[in-house]
Amino acid sequence: MDQLLKDYIKKLKGQNLLLPAWYEEGKIIMLDQLQLPMEEYVELKTVEEIAKAIKDMVIRGSGAIALGGIYGIIMETFNSHGNAEKVKNAGEFLKSTRPTAVNMHKTVDMLCENIDGYDAEELIQEMQKRAINIMEKQLDVERRIGKAGADLIQDGETILTICHAGGVAGFGFGGRTLSVFRTAAAQGKKIQVIACETRPYFQGARITAWELKKMGIPVTLITDNMVGAIAQKGMFNRVITGSDRLAVNGDTANKIGTYMISLVAKAHGIPFHISTSKYNIDLNSESGKDIEIEMRDSKEVVYINGQRIAAEGVEALYPGFDVTPNENITAIITENGAFEKPFREKLIKLAQEA
Amino acid sequence: MDQLLKDYIKKLKGQNLLLPAWYEEGKIIMLDQLQLPMEEYVELKTVEEIAKAIKDMVIRGSGAIALGGIYGIIMETFNSHGNAEKVKNAGEFLKSTRPTAVNMHKTVDMLCENIDGYDAEELIQEMQKRAINIMEKQLDVERRIGKAGADLIQDGETILTICHAGGVAGFGFGGRTLSVFRTAAAQGKKIQVIACETRPYFQGARITAWELKKMGIPVTLITDNMVGAIAQKGMFNRVITGSDRLAVNGDTANKIGTYMISLVAKAHGIPFHISTSKYNIDLNSESGKDIEIEMRDSKEVVYINGQRIAAEGVEALYPGFDVTPNENITAIITENGAFEKPFREKLIKLAQEA
Repeated sequence: MDQLLKDYIKKLKGQNLLLPAWYEEGKIIMLDQLQLPMEEYVELKTVEEIAKAIKDMVIRGSGAIALGGIYGIIMETFNSHGNAEKVKNAGEFLKSTRPTAVNMHKTVDMLCENIDGYDAEELIQEMQKRAINIMEKQLDVERRIGKAGADLIQDGETILTICHAGGVAGFGFGGRTLSVFRTAAAQGKKIQVIACETRPYFQGARITAWELKKMGIPVTLITDNMVGAIAQKGMFNRVITGSDRLAVNGDTANKIGTYMISLVAKAHGIPFHISTSKYNIDLNSESGKDIEIEMRDSKEVVYINGQRIAAEGVEALYPGFDVTPNENITAIITENGAFEKPFREKLIKLAQEA
Repeated sequence: MDQLLKDYIKKLKGQNLLLPAWYEEGKIIMLDQLQLPMEEYVELKTVEEIAKAIKDMVIRGSGAIALGGIYGIIMETFNSHGNAEKVKNAGEFLKSTRPTAVNMHKTVDMLCENIDGYDAEELIQEMQKRAINIMEKQLDVERRIGKAGADLIQDGETILTICHAGGVAGFGFGGRTLSVFRTAAAQGKKIQVIACETRPYFQGARITAWELKKMGIPVTLITDNMVGAIAQKGMFNRVITGSDRLAVNGDTANKIGTYMISLVAKAHGIPFHISTSKYNIDLNSESGKDIEIEMRDSKEVVYINGQRIAAEGVEALYPGFDVTPNENITAIITENGAFEKPFREKLIKLAQEA
């Protein structure tokens, strides 16, 4: 019944990927990303368990959440023995767990589209084919981003990055940024990465450094406020970060701290790149001014591992991201290649293909 | 025997200071700065106990360490019943605990200079007079820095700062930077402060925010990587930081992260100030290039409260400070007033007075 998917997972397992989740004998094995850099896995047997894992951020990153959605649908297909009605309900249920996860919503909708005509066993086969097809396409996007970025990198470079736009946040090749690093390494280039720890959630320390270590790429950790000092010492020669959203003029919203890195890069003449996908371009945002900065729960700034770092009563701020203006960006790396300024026309064309 | 010092401490206690340590009935009460923002005090009765507290960073900041040295000498003076030989030995012992604490060395030398001629009771009185004289002079320096900085501030301003150059790092008025804030507030100006948490040691979160809260000055905490985002939102209109060391051209070494803040301030046209003292000007450093960046133990980056934040085997870097070039500095605030560029002539003149 599950042979198609089992064969595909076997193929993936041979490719040295960083899979955030996979299917195995009637269950989903999922990396518990809340525990990173501790490598712990949970086993999930129902769509309810998978939906809870998505809600609880056991799986995170827009690509990986979409992958979680795929596996939720797959488990319900298997568990319901190919009941189309139940599969469609599972899709609605999964979408309701993360109302703003656009990627997951799109993916679930693609999977559940026009499935009423199949008999039970046909549906089970069809859903596996659709799931595999989407995974393969997404991995291909990651590989193409990797190639476009890696071609910019010279042998011997040290590249600085912030946050995590890597393997376990995507479908497993390397998301937006680790894809670039691993492809450069695969091209035989000796590279090193400097990972900013990325306060307040430490994604750089906890996840990016762990992934690079696993991929055998030398990585050095710094606190976010050290970027200027090490630029003064000439200790890195390129910056590559991910992106949450791009305005059509190239202004880019990304993890808090990215903008300050771009200022350092500019002051020291260091190339600064955004690695992204055409799906991140927002045709409704003409420039960064149209991107609203989300203010998050400031408790995350004041508490680390449940312990207060400031006196009782001290308030904090937590803007979740900042906007890097297009003039600070040397090139934008996408699945359709890397390109320099002017960005506008190219970004609009790309977004229209998405 | 100890009446002079007791009367002086009583006077200080009436001034709403933030004393890092004081004398009380045969012992020194010292704030345990390692526990901040928890407010805990230790009682020390001998020069050995005080030397250990200095070594263990229970008291920290170059001013406060010098104050610790004063109290070490005072306790030995009392405990030895005015034995000049023992007092001088105590001085050498105190200096040996922190070989690079120049301020403390100078202070101890001033205290122990020419003390052989006194009889025991005379010496006990003389040492108290010398100690009070030094403390009063140092508090006066802090008050003058406070006035020079406060005069730059307008009513209603929000000022951003990093690290801690405040009360308990100095003699208790407010060190280099809190002196400015408290004086501005005392002038009736409604100010707010944004404190950067200051990774990796969190001095901003743990100490600066605590001091401002105690002084009743509104304070908001951010992570160091948020400075750019809140500048984009126009949320602060001045920067004032401390300084470890100034080259004669005005290039300033200060806590890691200061340089990046200066880049943000420059990009957004926000005035950026260094608050310092003539004692921090290094006549041997022509420019920032002559200031060597100390690389510290990178464990402090990887561990928080004894817990690793990155996978085993991930290496880190820890440059202790960075250098802000003089062109990013709007004005330098000193005990002899605040002044703008060109800095060189003024700084040389000031340093020669030190």
